[in-house]
Amino acid sequence: MTSGTLHILGLGPGDPELVTLKAARILGAAPVFAHFAKRGRTGHARGIAAPHLNPAAEELRFDYPFTMDLPVTDPRYFPEMGAFYDRCAETLSACLAAGQDVALLCEGDPFLYGSAMYPFDRLRHRHPVQVVPGITAMSGCWSVAEAPMVHGDDTLLVLPATMDSDSLRTRLQQADAAVVMKLGRHLPRLRGILDELGLTARALYVERGTMEGGHAVPLAGRDDSPAPYFSLLLIPGRQDPRC
Amino acid sequence: MTSGTLHILGLGPGDPELVTLKAARILGAAPVFAHFAKRGRTGHARGIAAPHLNPAAEELRFDYPFTMDLPVTDPRYFPEMGAFYDRCAETLSACLAAGQDVALLCEGDPFLYGSAMYPFDRLRHRHPVQVVPGITAMSGCWSVAEAPMVHGDDTLLVLPATMDSDSLRTRLQQADAAVVMKLGRHLPRLRGILDELGLTARALYVERGTMEGGHAVPLAGRDDSPAPYFSLLLIPGRQDPRC
Ligand SMILES: C[S@@+](CC[C@H](N)C(=O)[O-])C[C@H]1O[C@@H](n2cnc3c(N)ncnc32)[C@H](O)[C@@H]1O
Ligand SMILES: C[S@@+](CC[C@H](N)C(=O)[O-])C[C@H]1O[C@@H](n2cnc3c(N)ncnc32)[C@H](O)[C@@H]1O
Repeated sequence: MTSGTLHILGLGPGDPELVTLKAARILGAAPVFAHFAKRGRTGHARGIAAPHLNPAAEELRFDYPFTMDLPVTDPRYFPEMGAFYDRCAETLSACLAAGQDVALLCEGDPFLYGSAMYPFDRLRHRHPVQVVPGITAMSGCWSVAEAPMVHGDDTLLVLPATMDSDSLRTRLQQADAAVVMKLGRHLPRLRGILDELGLTARALYVERGTMEGGHAVPLAGRDDSPAPYFSLLLIPGRQDPRC
Repeated sequence: MTSGTLHILGLGPGDPELVTLKAARILGAAPVFAHFAKRGRTGHARGIAAPHLNPAAEELRFDYPFTMDLPVTDPRYFPEMGAFYDRCAETLSACLAAGQDVALLCEGDPFLYGSAMYPFDRLRHRHPVQVVPGITAMSGCWSVAEAPMVHGDDTLLVLPATMDSDSLRTRLQQADAAVVMKLGRHLPRLRGILDELGLTARALYVERGTMEGGHAVPLAGRDDSPAPYFSLLLIPGRQDPRC
């Protein structure tokens, strides 16, 4: 029996029309699709994929073992996540070994902070795998915010708000343009650091970029209540393009 | 007369199937499309768009006034480029003012080192403008290279090889994952810096990612001849994911 192919599909930041022709073609044909989700919620990638799915396809849903309950600093976090990804990989492998192609759905681009990297690592030498890039959340967000980000020889730094304050400060200080992902409850701390560095006036807050009800506002106009999962900060680079 | 809309369309790294459904829809309907190109060459974005264009559409081609002839350090560079972008903006404005929608084609994502940012700056307050994000060259490249790039709380740094060596060194030293764009004749200098930092063994060289004849190889296996325009270096982050 020839193995099926695992298609790891980047589906973009939220607007189902920001799916690529390639991902849409593969989604429409795949006999099985798989996705990660938080317990009790419709997965984001699942929602984006909905209009493009093969209606007869079999669905594999992988519920994260925990989400906010267990902090990353807990010694059980990584072993439990590792065991979870092992189980996902075995489920995928069984379908692939039976000759079925599987589409693994990913929000944004799979290889930029994507969960699909973990089953990919486990299966890449056992089955044929194809990775289809997706529109990243940051591209979706700076497009809706109408914020040209990176000019000429500017650098772009992408970092998670979960880093400690010293690391954030040192790195943001050196960056021309920057994107801060995974804001959550870190927004007030971020604002403090950006204030210190004189960057607050340039920063934009984008929530649910390209999704229904999404919006972009200057950070100065956003309060300090916790940011929802689908939000990030943009600090556009060169404010004075040379041409 | 109501103004037409300027659609600034990200078309991805090269594979025409990596165009989004949204960009393909707009391309198929636009009565006018415009693109930048180097004198005497088919523009890259034009090539990606080809299968999706409205066959009756009018074409506006903007030839860069110079490419490699005049170095960025020449005092004439920015004034001449500025005047060129002024002319492009006026040409686009005339079509828009006549009520026509115009699709401005961009390789990759428009707001990441894209030329379209310059007409955008000139026209954003004069006409309706819509920006459609595209798959970035780096996403296309790390997908074909099968290189998971950014895990957990890794940072990602994107920089152009055109920076001076000290700046490159300081910034690369602090980065977890990095992408170096615009390699050209800077490849040997980059290699020297990566050697110093102990990063060469991790670096991948990707040429023409997602395009025909494209390939990805370890940097160690690439010679020092000048890199073509469509190439970049990837330095994937965390080599030892924690789960
Ligand atoms: C685990 S990362 C996944 C990133 C994704 N793979 C990508 O390519 O952009 C999740 C983070 O992405 C950001 N994000 C994802 N979609 C977003 C959206 N539509 N609007 C704003 N931020 C978004 C948020 O910062 C969130 O914490
Ligand atoms: C002016 S920048 C444009 C970047 C583009 N807007 C994006 O979103 O990626 C041009 C640089 O992108 C990189 N590039 C673009 N397409 C590429 C491809 N298919 N393969 C490798 N590198 C590419 C090269 O480093 C090149 O010097």
